[in-house]
Amino acid sequence: MEQKDFDFGLVGLGVMGRNFILNVADNKFKAFGYDLDPEKVSALIEEGGNPDQVNATSDLSTFVGALSTPRKIMLLVPAGKIVDQVIESLLPHLDQGDIIIDGGNSFYTDTDRREAYLKDKGLHFFGSGVSGGAKGARRGPSIMPGGDKEAYEHVRPIFEAVAAKYKGEPCVAYLGPKSAGNYVKMVHNGIEYAMMQLTSEIYDLLKKSADLSNDELHEVFSSWNQGRLQSFLVEITSEIFLQKDDLTDARLVDMILDKAKQKGTGKWTSQNAMDLGIPVPTIDMAVSMREISALKDERVKADELYDRPAVQHIEKAELIELAEKALYFSFILSYAQGLNQLAEASKEYGYELNMSQIAKIWRAGCIIRAGLLADIADAFEANPGLTNLLLAPSFVKQVQETLPAVRETVAFAAKSGVPVPGLFSALSYFDAFTSSKLPLNLIQAQRDHFGSHTYERIDREGIFHTEWGA
Amino acid sequence: MEQKDFDFGLVGLGVMGRNFILNVADNKFKAFGYDLDPEKVSALIEEGGNPDQVNATSDLSTFVGALSTPRKIMLLVPAGKIVDQVIESLLPHLDQGDIIIDGGNSFYTDTDRREAYLKDKGLHFFGSGVSGGAKGARRGPSIMPGGDKEAYEHVRPIFEAVAAKYKGEPCVAYLGPKSAGNYVKMVHNGIEYAMMQLTSEIYDLLKKSADLSNDELHEVFSSWNQGRLQSFLVEITSEIFLQKDDLTDARLVDMILDKAKQKGTGKWTSQNAMDLGIPVPTIDMAVSMREISALKDERVKADELYDRPAVQHIEKAELIELAEKALYFSFILSYAQGLNQLAEASKEYGYELNMSQIAKIWRAGCIIRAGLLADIADAFEANPGLTNLLLAPSFVKQVQETLPAVRETVAFAAKSGVPVPGLFSALSYFDAFTSSKLPLNLIQAQRDHFGSHTYERIDREGIFHTEWGA
Repeated sequence: MEQKDFDFGLVGLGVMGRNFILNVADNKFKAFGYDLDPEKVSALIEEGGNPDQVNATSDLSTFVGALSTPRKIMLLVPAGKIVDQVIESLLPHLDQGDIIIDGGNSFYTDTDRREAYLKDKGLHFFGSGVSGGAKGARRGPSIMPGGDKEAYEHVRPIFEAVAAKYKGEPCVAYLGPKSAGNYVKMVHNGIEYAMMQLTSEIYDLLKKSADLSNDELHEVFSSWNQGRLQSFLVEITSEIFLQKDDLTDARLVDMILDKAKQKGTGKWTSQNAMDLGIPVPTIDMAVSMREISALKDERVKADELYDRPAVQHIEKAELIELAEKALYFSFILSYAQGLNQLAEASKEYGYELNMSQIAKIWRAGCIIRAGLLADIADAFEANPGLTNLLLAPSFVKQVQETLPAVRETVAFAAKSGVPVPGLFSALSYFDAFTSSKLPLNLIQAQRDHFGSHTYERIDREGIFHTEWGA
Repeated sequence: MEQKDFDFGLVGLGVMGRNFILNVADNKFKAFGYDLDPEKVSALIEEGGNPDQVNATSDLSTFVGALSTPRKIMLLVPAGKIVDQVIESLLPHLDQGDIIIDGGNSFYTDTDRREAYLKDKGLHFFGSGVSGGAKGARRGPSIMPGGDKEAYEHVRPIFEAVAAKYKGEPCVAYLGPKSAGNYVKMVHNGIEYAMMQLTSEIYDLLKKSADLSNDELHEVFSSWNQGRLQSFLVEITSEIFLQKDDLTDARLVDMILDKAKQKGTGKWTSQNAMDLGIPVPTIDMAVSMREISALKDERVKADELYDRPAVQHIEKAELIELAEKALYFSFILSYAQGLNQLAEASKEYGYELNMSQIAKIWRAGCIIRAGLLADIADAFEANPGLTNLLLAPSFVKQVQETLPAVRETVAFAAKSGVPVPGLFSALSYFDAFTSSKLPLNLIQAQRDHFGSHTYERIDREGIFHTEWGA
């Protein structure tokens, strides 16, 4: 007689899927994997050790038949049409009340569409962001479920067991209805783009302007990771500088081509922010910089055409101190922009997001985990209606303290010709957001002048138009 | 017997439509207008003077019946569903071979859809951007038609007559198949957003850092308009500073609220550039700044929470000289980004754009007209395959010459706390685009470290993955 008591099914046994399922099994849940590729199936069975605890198959009906009902089947497959294809292939095998969880980076409107489609068939479907990369999936990711709360309750014990723990608290929480889970994960990735871009700029500045070696860069990022910059990205950056190249005598980082790829979530974050009218310029800029990085041939040509500015002298220690503050400031600004997008999107899409809870489940497991997130969670807990982190009293002092260094770093980079677009955009956002008076009165004047687009006034209500120059 | 010999029909007698039709009539074509609003109809008839030359109606069959065949009917109505509604209402009255021209800011995919839909019915449809605001429509706009070339030939004599003239050459040309006309106009508007934002930043810097009065600002922009910054936007900006307020004793510019509105074309430009993987950070930033400007209440709160940096001393004359160079540089960078988007989009969408021709028809009539465009047209004529203006030999010297001042201005603004996000983004784009080596090797290392996303190498072909820290 076949076993039918597996607690959790997982479709897609790539590195993320294999690691996630092993994590589930470690936590005493029986887990069954499915993948069309028999090699991935055998790899999982072998690594799992005990087939009563972890098993896998390339046969869909064996897979579905092995799961206890209501079945809990998570998909970890590439976003897009494949998700729909997997869902269609599962459908004939499922029973009413079964639960499908999309753990990939699906676009939020796809999640809403699939939830509605499957609800009509008596099935539960919800999207759940998963962050932490391969190692996170294995040892404890941050998990961002949304959608059908009742269905989530069936999966909750498993997710809470496998999720990363921050001081004992699992980094998973039900975030809100509909596609809230995928949406929060999308913006998480947008913030990740910004933080990666900023880290790379600071690396560039230290290397180009103060000639830091890879060992010195390792030391700097390592020591930063002991302080208020403590974060997964700073930690792995410090490790990266030590990695030896297998093929040459160099450090690997110096042999990697400077063309960064992207898989779309950063771009989606920016595009959706624009649809909602929410400014996230540091995320936008991170997307732009990946695009400019791809233009390697043109960059090489352009570099030959233009002179570099004269080298600006600065002491290593001084630049390192400036850079630490600039990075800290711009990390805060990245979170501020992304969280502002979430707060505003929550109103627009009815996600009912609890901002403090989001910051809490990001404190461990995910790629943007950082010491800062504990402070951020506190700030939103103190004021659940907070829309922008820059308005939180607890952040004013720490932001203010970095500003002279940020301004100095921007000025230095501008004169040195070292591109720090993310940092520039973070300071721009700060200076604009903290300006009670911006010069966009001139833009309204221009629009009314050439297009009769009207304007508002500072001294009375209403909509006005002027025949300029009349 | 009714007249049936009107050469041109126009739907939508708002200020743009009325002015455009009067322009057509001035050029000896008989023009007939249509609008549901009888007041707009009478206003046009009255202003037109001679009903054999310009006439109008609120009756659709009278309107269509008055036009000679093939009918040439231009729509100047708001983009979106209204365009479809107008088309549907026209359909029963039209004959095979009639031509509908969409002169509004329709999204390019809507234009492609409508062209295909009407082709099935034996009708011609093409999109044609029109820029120049109300005055441009009256005295000569820049016109950007694309789509059905044969249909355009019927309209060409009228468009060439009414278009603005640059040294006798009409600022209109057939740009390419499908939605090329609307797409070029969309990017035109994206560039316009960037240039308006940059103008407002320079105004802010001069006003906040060197206390220039409105009269002095008028003088400065006026003198700039006599030099290499000569442009419509600089010209109207100089005029704006003189405009008296009717309601108070102040200058009007000081009474206008600093919340800038947008109608979407700048946002579309940025979002579509992201879809195509083309960096246009100065346009993105202009969109973000309109969004930040809307957050007036939060800005006022934030302003109270944070200290301003100490005032940086600078002489008026020195700042004016820096500002001129910064504005010139960033105007060039705005055109460079937008034209790069057009060149790349042309490949993606098969528009077959002639970049030099686009620059030529922008030299007069449109909102972004500027002395610079003659040089830009020359640069693309010298090298039709040029993808980025920064690579044009004729631009290297003039860009290079401004750089010390640009770097000085950025440093000064950063230390002063005056937000100049557009300028920052322009310098960022320049410094990144002219860097043969960017630090995005680190981003690829990070991506491979946490997500096994692989990387390329500088010394050999292939795709590589490393077990980091192993």
